[in-house]
Amino acid sequence: MKFTIDKKILLDNLVNVTRAISTKNVIPILNGIKMDLTEEGLYLTASDSELTIKTFIETKDIKHVDTLGSIIIQSKFILDIIRKLPGEVVNFEIRDGLKIRIYTDGSEYNLNCLNPVEYPQIRLEEVKEPYIIKSSLFKTIINQTVFAISTQELRPLLTGLNLKITGDILECIATDSYRLAKKIVKLDKASNDEINIVIPGKNIQELDKILDDEEDLEMHIFNNKVVFKYKNITFQSNLLAGTYPNTNNLIPTEFSYMINVDLHKYYDAIDRAALLTQSKDKNIVKMTVNNNEMTINSFASEIGKVEEKLVIESNNSTNLDISFSARYMMEALRTFKDEQILILLNGEVKPIVIKSVNDESLIQLILPIKTY
Amino acid sequence: MKFTIDKKILLDNLVNVTRAISTKNVIPILNGIKMDLTEEGLYLTASDSELTIKTFIETKDIKHVDTLGSIIIQSKFILDIIRKLPGEVVNFEIRDGLKIRIYTDGSEYNLNCLNPVEYPQIRLEEVKEPYIIKSSLFKTIINQTVFAISTQELRPLLTGLNLKITGDILECIATDSYRLAKKIVKLDKASNDEINIVIPGKNIQELDKILDDEEDLEMHIFNNKVVFKYKNITFQSNLLAGTYPNTNNLIPTEFSYMINVDLHKYYDAIDRAALLTQSKDKNIVKMTVNNNEMTINSFASEIGKVEEKLVIESNNSTNLDISFSARYMMEALRTFKDEQILILLNGEVKPIVIKSVNDESLIQLILPIKTY
Repeated sequence: MKFTIDKKILLDNLVNVTRAISTKNVIPILNGIKMDLTEEGLYLTASDSELTIKTFIETKDIKHVDTLGSIIIQSKFILDIIRKLPGEVVNFEIRDGLKIRIYTDGSEYNLNCLNPVEYPQIRLEEVKEPYIIKSSLFKTIINQTVFAISTQELRPLLTGLNLKITGDILECIATDSYRLAKKIVKLDKASNDEINIVIPGKNIQELDKILDDEEDLEMHIFNNKVVFKYKNITFQSNLLAGTYPNTNNLIPTEFSYMINVDLHKYYDAIDRAALLTQSKDKNIVKMTVNNNEMTINSFASEIGKVEEKLVIESNNSTNLDISFSARYMMEALRTFKDEQILILLNGEVKPIVIKSVNDESLIQLILPIKTY
Repeated sequence: MKFTIDKKILLDNLVNVTRAISTKNVIPILNGIKMDLTEEGLYLTASDSELTIKTFIETKDIKHVDTLGSIIIQSKFILDIIRKLPGEVVNFEIRDGLKIRIYTDGSEYNLNCLNPVEYPQIRLEEVKEPYIIKSSLFKTIINQTVFAISTQELRPLLTGLNLKITGDILECIATDSYRLAKKIVKLDKASNDEINIVIPGKNIQELDKILDDEEDLEMHIFNNKVVFKYKNITFQSNLLAGTYPNTNNLIPTEFSYMINVDLHKYYDAIDRAALLTQSKDKNIVKMTVNNNEMTINSFASEIGKVEEKLVIESNNSTNLDISFSARYMMEALRTFKDEQILILLNGEVKPIVIKSVNDESLIQLILPIKTY
């Protein structure tokens, strides 16, 4: 294998494949990146066995191909090496079997490599008719839900993002059992199959980093894995086994309080109240609704207390006190782009639901915290 | 005490005084900031007993003064509180003796305070004729030397910056005994006194953050402390006791190798070589000088090796191999602004000296590392 390639093209692709490499991985060969230079072009593959990312650079985008071949380079340092090399192009050459020479004028790295025949066989399959969704829309879906995914391994399914397709409706749900985020979008084409899968949260977060343009994202769904195809990238994630809990009946549809509030003023008030709270992880604040005034209170013993007042519109003049995690509320609020939002309540121990005034596609739910 | 003040003015001053507050401090009152509102204006003081910073906001820069007074506010959260408050102005009011109300429209913090009579008496003295130096020049001096200060408490004096004044010559020296940085500048006025003081490195680094404009910096030197006056800020640091080692005879003045090299190419080559080194903290690279070619080598077992070649101008055609810490070399190189620099050598176990081609005021010295 010997070739010359534009540094920026190679680097962009290496950055994307290295997202599959896990720092927790203990299998030496999976710390490597497989490079296959074929007649068609250069394939780069990296995997942590649960996530595999493969990219492809066409021959026409490679400056010069001398000889074809395969090798596994160690991923450690490789991004820094390519980034720091001088000049616009970089040369690769396999030497003495399992060594690679990476060089430009005056600069030369000789790196030990691994044998490509030892790399696990990873099949990246395709279905005939994948679901197609705009990458920017899918990125929005991820960002509006992924933060609510559980980080507790106690209930493994909750560490994933639930994707359901029925007809032309795609539903995306994340919950850690204290809060829930749900996004509904309409697909361009109806599906004949009922889809209900759970994609590991950490893999979805890596996919989010890869999606940068407004392009078609293909979703190929199998029994135990999902393959996303995006530009020159193939992204294969395992699925979490089991059936995701049905969350539909957790989300109330009728509310005794419908409160209309300015999103940014509400967010900033909670942000300020959160500065003074009892414990840093729970950071509980108390919200009081009293006619057209909302008060947000919190305190930190020894330090002091804070009180925020906001003008609201409410359909209910009865007083209500409700306490919740400021962090959870702020994470939920960040998913809205509107000027005004609706805060929907049924009482001090009932879920808090946040919705956009105009757009029904996004629902955020937070459970209150009892403070007595 | 009750007053209204522009948020930005207050914040800038609070940011500066809180630099004196130490996270390691165990005296509760020194976690506070002393606020004194007098006829002349508002004084803010913070101290960790080794460093005291006091700033002054004139009455004409305070929006509205209602009643004068003193209080000690807790420094924890105060910057975030002021930063996050809405609007342009903020109101302060002492309530119930030792509580302060900090408020704007709709937002109100009530913070517990400490009694100002319990704050230690700190005398910020002045000499009649301070040394005066431009703040930008002093900032340059700090940045060109401070990185070489030792972080090891074993030799306490080396954890400080040595400042010497003889006549109109100011010498600034830092060394951790493996490398040395020395800067010499000419003062506008000759001094009658011989000055030889050592300022704690951590305090000098805080002073560096405060200096932002091209203004006069006054230096008031006492037996056991130094007071810097800059704009509306008084900055008082303790001095380290003892006599700083005489480093003059450590710096060679004659060299068997005078090598002229492009600063950025040399820096980048070492940066790339440093990627593959044996141990991350020592990160040793080997430099070989051979006529008009310089080679920089390093390797990391298991990973591979790197070789960098540079064209140089040398007055000595004999081969020389010398090994040193890439990190130390890069930190020294970052203090130069020139295109070309001089690397001065006397042999593989003798100090490496780096100088500017035109400017004699800055000397960087690094001891080589024996690698056999």
